[in-house]
Amino acid sequence: MDYVTSVNIACGFHAGDPEIMEKTVKTAMKKGVSIGAHPGYPDLQGFGRRAMNLSNEALRASMIYQINALKGFVELYGGKLRHVKPHGALYNLASKNYEVASIIAKAVYDIDPTLILMGLAGSEMIKAGEAVGLEVAAETFADRRYTSELKLVPRDTEGAVIETVEGSIKQCMSMIKSQSIVDINGNTKTLKGDSICIHGDNAHGIELVKMLLKALEQEKITVEAL
Amino acid sequence: MDYVTSVNIACGFHAGDPEIMEKTVKTAMKKGVSIGAHPGYPDLQGFGRRAMNLSNEALRASMIYQINALKGFVELYGGKLRHVKPHGALYNLASKNYEVASIIAKAVYDIDPTLILMGLAGSEMIKAGEAVGLEVAAETFADRRYTSELKLVPRDTEGAVIETVEGSIKQCMSMIKSQSIVDINGNTKTLKGDSICIHGDNAHGIELVKMLLKALEQEKITVEAL
Amino acid sequence: MDYVTSVNIACGFHAGDPEIMEKTVKTAMKKGVSIGAHPGYPDLQGFGRRAMNLSNEALRASMIYQINALKGFVELYGGKLRHVKPHGALYNLASKNYEVASIIAKAVYDIDPTLILMGLAGSEMIKAGEAVGLEVAAETFADRRYTSELKLVPRDTEGAVIETVEGSIKQCMSMIKSQSIVDINGNTKTLKGDSICIHGDNAHGIELVKMLLKALEQEKITVEAL
Amino acid sequence: MDYVTSVNIACGFHAGDPEIMEKTVKTAMKKGVSIGAHPGYPDLQGFGRRAMNLSNEALRASMIYQINALKGFVELYGGKLRHVKPHGALYNLASKNYEVASIIAKAVYDIDPTLILMGLAGSEMIKAGEAVGLEVAAETFADRRYTSELKLVPRDTEGAVIETVEGSIKQCMSMIKSQSIVDINGNTKTLKGDSICIHGDNAHGIELVKMLLKALEQEKITVEAL
Repeated sequence: MDYVTSVNIACGFHAGDPEIMEKTVKTAMKKGVSIGAHPGYPDLQGFGRRAMNLSNEALRASMIYQINALKGFVELYGGKLRHVKPHGALYNLASKNYEVASIIAKAVYDIDPTLILMGLAGSEMIKAGEAVGLEVAAETFADRRYTSELKLVPRDTEGAVIETVEGSIKQCMSMIKSQSIVDINGNTKTLKGDSICIHGDNAHGIELVKMLLKALEQEKITVEAL
Repeated sequence: MDYVTSVNIACGFHAGDPEIMEKTVKTAMKKGVSIGAHPGYPDLQGFGRRAMNLSNEALRASMIYQINALKGFVELYGGKLRHVKPHGALYNLASKNYEVASIIAKAVYDIDPTLILMGLAGSEMIKAGEAVGLEVAAETFADRRYTSELKLVPRDTEGAVIETVEGSIKQCMSMIKSQSIVDINGNTKTLKGDSICIHGDNAHGIELVKMLLKALEQEKITVEAL
Repeated sequence: MDYVTSVNIACGFHAGDPEIMEKTVKTAMKKGVSIGAHPGYPDLQGFGRRAMNLSNEALRASMIYQINALKGFVELYGGKLRHVKPHGALYNLASKNYEVASIIAKAVYDIDPTLILMGLAGSEMIKAGEAVGLEVAAETFADRRYTSELKLVPRDTEGAVIETVEGSIKQCMSMIKSQSIVDINGNTKTLKGDSICIHGDNAHGIELVKMLLKALEQEKITVEAL
Repeated sequence: MDYVTSVNIACGFHAGDPEIMEKTVKTAMKKGVSIGAHPGYPDLQGFGRRAMNLSNEALRASMIYQINALKGFVELYGGKLRHVKPHGALYNLASKNYEVASIIAKAVYDIDPTLILMGLAGSEMIKAGEAVGLEVAAETFADRRYTSELKLVPRDTEGAVIETVEGSIKQCMSMIKSQSIVDINGNTKTLKGDSICIHGDNAHGIELVKMLLKALEQEKITVEAL
């Protein structure tokens, strides 16, 4: 949290628990980092990375529950929840499935229409968020490779993750400076984003953030919270 | 919900899930029933009726999480959460243990100082709620017998539950009209309460409520929400 | 259990817990009812009725875990586990998906090659069980309607469940006496089965079983455990 | 697992899941490490380190369930489950409470009377195991300090954990060579044990095991599986 401008905090369904959430919220507020809710499938065993066929009603209620649970901690300490970013398999499904994306977007809007909905740049989630009247943030990834349709290459596919810090920095600088990336097939594609995701469980995560900030500084590019 | 003035809604830790919570909140609001949060231990297997030795930090965070999760549904539909009543083994522990009661009361106050804390009439929870500055509601039970110290006779003790509707009505009318009950040893004790609990899982629950309302009507006594 | 010859006992992942499992096993053994394991997805909230995208490794391990947990209770009381029947969304997926069915069949075989695998009559699960060398039991349903491909009409489709006892009895007698059913489109189809499922949560379940047994008795047809 | 002779494998209630259990069992068998079941309270949030007030029936069933779930993996790969060691808060309660210890011991005996029950050296669990007719293994701890009654100093007390590798080695060599330790008050006490526990989550765990094995080698003392 010393290097990022926003964090996504898990809400207890795929990871996290109340005590961890309270501590993380307090730390983020002390460091002035913007806070987002990171709701996921109710699947601790699978860390929310396995698709689950929730009914529309169950999905909606699950979003409202998780987001409010986190929002409560933030507001209790005088802060404001800024954004919502679905996690894992739900994030991926909502990138491709407009109906699912719409249920999420509607739930977020019903909770607080000033919340920002974060989703994969160019995805159905961004479209659904705009359609419902939310401000959206198009997310790009430092350490993940893209398909030719600008979706994330699935984690179980070879080459899905950019393993080196250098490779990730290169992709980031290309996204920032020329709004483009090189997809998994080697073709250059236009990709416009508002936010870059660095995974907390990436082994090189901290090193990557530090080097990226240094690279941006050299180019006199500043980073801001959502 | 056609007969009661307040409901306590489980928040997903010992029972309930987001979809059930959303439906129950909507039903309560349609019927004009006052809504309270009913947080409990994280123990679905044991329905929150087994004591768990949570740290003070875990207990506090667990209360904030559950209460806000429910509060979110209520406010999303334009309502207001009125009260908080801990569930099961946590309710019992907080009746006797002032430290535990204080952590719960402080968490409730931190969320919203206008919330009413409901606890066993005459218990540590009522004292802790008053000490922290909350409005409190002293709860009495239609279908449970009392010890000589006016605690509930534990569920696994013989005679803990008043099995007949007539017995429950008699205890209620005695509490309401003469502020007294007959304890498990047969002695009459003073007991002042603000609310009477009818368990939703009591086999005669509905019949009991109807007959109690009829008995109150004959005495021209009215019931109001908290 | 006074009317059936076999029971499927949930193993704690979608329903059930150790205490319930131990009690149910003891009751089944006292009544001489044959016992089967009923493993499902790790989804208590959804009662195992929501598809989950488990990896092959997670699915295999999950089957071995649940089946052995139940088998342990049965053997501790001197009994023998007779069959395995996957539950809910997993049952449905394994009916259509040979890869999933094969992983389940292989796990069952690895635990004990004398176990019987129960699956939807004519489904991929039956084929996968036979391919791996297991004895199989083709299951039919008293209270569910069939598609033209002899799959179960999904629960969220209108007409999925036969609501009347008479309708269920009629379907059962047709299956037993002429190995045929009338599908949801009104066409008569051949359907051969070894077992008829009566859902424990069918509101008319007990009445249905009693009337079916009476109807079979009149036709001098006897029912046997697997 | 390259340095120890036995492992305790969590069974899914306080940690672990089926997939991790299957992998860990396979690794242990490949390396020839003796396998024990490590059942705990159903409390993933608290890692089984919070006491829970289970009924005797729930505790017994919970032990049978967890132990058989793990035993199934071991036997499927042709191995044999050697011992059972309760985890965390359950281990501590069973050290002091003979009734709880007896329920655990009886459950283990009912599953397989040749299983070894591992418990704190000199504790009620050892007595209960012997009383029921089980072989027992008295466990001592490399990195935990002892009270004057030879119980473990609770984790939330200062000085509970021996932080340095040197301190742990010293305590181990004292236990092995002179059957004694220095308790938290500085007094020397007799302590006889059959096994030494090294926590897998001790930051210096691997280093500690390696140095202990070297120290034992210099003294020509050999280590054997239970």
